[in-house]
Amino acid sequence: MGSIDLGPFPTVDGFKRAVDLDEADPLRSFADRFVPTEPELIYLDGNSLGRLPAATVARVHDVVDREWGDRLIRSWPENWWDLADEVGSQIAPLIGAEPGEVIVADSTSVVLFKLTLAALQARPGRTRIVTDDLNFPTDAYVTMAAADLAGDREIVTVSSLDGINGPEEAIIAALDDDTALLTLTHVAFKSGYRYDMERLTRAAHDVGALVLWDLSHSVGAVPLDLGGAGADLAVGCTYKYLNGGPGSPAFLYVNSRIDAEVENPLSGWWGHGQPFAFDLEYTPASSIRRFQTGTMPILSLSAIETGVALTTEAGIDTLRAKSIGLSEFFIEQSRAHLEPLGFTLASPADPAWRGSHVSLRHQDGWRIVQAMIEHGNVIPDFREPDNLRFGLTPLTTSYTDLHMAIIRIKNLMAADLPQTYPKTRHSVT
Amino acid sequence: MGSIDLGPFPTVDGFKRAVDLDEADPLRSFADRFVPTEPELIYLDGNSLGRLPAATVARVHDVVDREWGDRLIRSWPENWWDLADEVGSQIAPLIGAEPGEVIVADSTSVVLFKLTLAALQARPGRTRIVTDDLNFPTDAYVTMAAADLAGDREIVTVSSLDGINGPEEAIIAALDDDTALLTLTHVAFKSGYRYDMERLTRAAHDVGALVLWDLSHSVGAVPLDLGGAGADLAVGCTYKYLNGGPGSPAFLYVNSRIDAEVENPLSGWWGHGQPFAFDLEYTPASSIRRFQTGTMPILSLSAIETGVALTTEAGIDTLRAKSIGLSEFFIEQSRAHLEPLGFTLASPADPAWRGSHVSLRHQDGWRIVQAMIEHGNVIPDFREPDNLRFGLTPLTTSYTDLHMAIIRIKNLMAADLPQTYPKTRHSVT
Repeated sequence: MGSIDLGPFPTVDGFKRAVDLDEADPLRSFADRFVPTEPELIYLDGNSLGRLPAATVARVHDVVDREWGDRLIRSWPENWWDLADEVGSQIAPLIGAEPGEVIVADSTSVVLFKLTLAALQARPGRTRIVTDDLNFPTDAYVTMAAADLAGDREIVTVSSLDGINGPEEAIIAALDDDTALLTLTHVAFKSGYRYDMERLTRAAHDVGALVLWDLSHSVGAVPLDLGGAGADLAVGCTYKYLNGGPGSPAFLYVNSRIDAEVENPLSGWWGHGQPFAFDLEYTPASSIRRFQTGTMPILSLSAIETGVALTTEAGIDTLRAKSIGLSEFFIEQSRAHLEPLGFTLASPADPAWRGSHVSLRHQDGWRIVQAMIEHGNVIPDFREPDNLRFGLTPLTTSYTDLHMAIIRIKNLMAADLPQTYPKTRHSVT
Repeated sequence: MGSIDLGPFPTVDGFKRAVDLDEADPLRSFADRFVPTEPELIYLDGNSLGRLPAATVARVHDVVDREWGDRLIRSWPENWWDLADEVGSQIAPLIGAEPGEVIVADSTSVVLFKLTLAALQARPGRTRIVTDDLNFPTDAYVTMAAADLAGDREIVTVSSLDGINGPEEAIIAALDDDTALLTLTHVAFKSGYRYDMERLTRAAHDVGALVLWDLSHSVGAVPLDLGGAGADLAVGCTYKYLNGGPGSPAFLYVNSRIDAEVENPLSGWWGHGQPFAFDLEYTPASSIRRFQTGTMPILSLSAIETGVALTTEAGIDTLRAKSIGLSEFFIEQSRAHLEPLGFTLASPADPAWRGSHVSLRHQDGWRIVQAMIEHGNVIPDFREPDNLRFGLTPLTTSYTDLHMAIIRIKNLMAADLPQTYPKTRHSVT
């Protein structure tokens, strides 16, 4: 299709405000700590795959060239044996956990499976598992898998009335003395709705149920206080706001208060107290390591640290303040420029109930996203059936990025480009 | 301790034979395709962590710098979505599988769990699981975990009489009409005993049981024909003879003959037929992808390909011929030089029953291994209680390496060095 003239900026006021906000941004310099994208690209999908920290390049090269290539097997005691623990301890303060309560383990789905099944086994007499339909699908699939294995369990999926707001009242009403587990994603993957962790955790505890929080869309973007909320179990992604790299392994959290109640149902040698005794009997480690199973993918694990360090250095409260600033500006600008073109807000309007991404809905959503990527140099995310999801990642996103993205979308709509794309997403398998 | 004079080579004959064998070695040039180790180091632990192929350095750098850093989320459709399938298809010919029967997934332990539980669920009325005590401990732990979840299962662990040879007759005798699964490691991790896959598979099938083979110490070292043997299920490590890097994810094999019988018990979005439909109902993919669960660790997954390509290029029959040559030479030289010092062979003497590593036993094993690493520049592996394990990896190990390693051990023993090390391994957790 070649290049499209996107025209001049039609909103001098908006642009000037964006520049002023960027100048006042205390996190402004952090974008320079990442490998630059191609010129003109506006990347608004850091909530799906975070950008590459410059320091990670050197780190991974060193792990490959020196730790693997040169030190070989000696790197296990020298560099790798404690790494999953160390990264877990580094993540702990970001989620309100004590150091020994967090460890990096498998993929998010596998980690979810282990903790879900552990929770169900800790509540053997109770048949109900409560969740809602804003939960991420893999959480639903994993819950089904664990429920099948735990036996005689019923999954109660509470419906969001509008697909945007978490049905907190209905969730609380669904909890009863027969409930084993409440399992929710803390910030909803599609709408960005942010649940009241403390209130829901208390409600679950009031009926004697355990609570499992999926922090994938929260960690690194919103302040979290698992300990303060009394949460029992949690998992989270490291490749979104923590910038750990594609498919980097997930972390898990077990509140030390319930240590005696939960066991890792997927026992493997990495969770053994003495893995190199090569004992055919399984004796779990006494620490959080007992929730590990197999050998960690070291290259992917090693890439997590520098992103977490940047997040820690920036400070979660400062990140949250900028995230709210970005999302308020984005919503204000999209109301002015995109609502007249058929876009509607599909996230909570009140920032207190939002995470760090904003969704817009448009009936031609899929086609618009394709046009944005191919002709607008703007990368958002698409979520079926009509959601354009914009990740506002405070370490790397500027106000100017957001203003320019909105103007480019407006101009693309004027160019009638979406008609050149198929109406629906291709099937992937 | 400083440097130790290891003295002159006392065996001109042995050295000359090693040089001659190296000159006749058709795989000699392959060592140059790996990143060199430090000068003088003899690395005999490639069966624990394979060396770094030179091409892998550029590959991982490209994945980090360009695929992640530059292409960002666009790399999912461009580079990563089909990668686990592609690497699986690349491994398939090395194990006698059809391309659609193999995929890379989680850690070896997690993959073992999924296939073990799938097998038990496919044989619901049968209570017995047969294995033996030469199996790798994590296989035992995972079998216990799956057995607990499948309910009403008994694990029958057949004993090897000498700790070296697989108790094949006793295993066959233990199989009965109540047996759901026979699960074995094809090449034993300690002794290197290589099981008769075809015979044991047939015996299990004769009683209606399924068979799961752990190929971690076989793949890339010995020819495998899962299809010809009629094996049902298999898993294997990619970081040993395939040189895929520390903790690189494992592959799994499901014989297409039993596709209709087995399901992935650990359902997650990566095994869904349409993961990006974000449907809360789980509909498995029709292909081998249904055995995946969560997002793959892409950096670690990407590192596997070049090692597999080198193995494929060398040819598994040529690799096996050299492996036998290396192990025969190593055993001959250790008989001459190390047996008089208290070492005994702890692997089968007949190469037909061996994989590609050789174990020696010595009552001071742990101390000798420490001395070898710190003062002999030889890296073997230690396995409790007294096993020195030597990985003879035909892509990178030379006959000269083996001769020099044995002479260095001999000289270390003469220097009385082992007395300076603690008698037993430290506890690791």
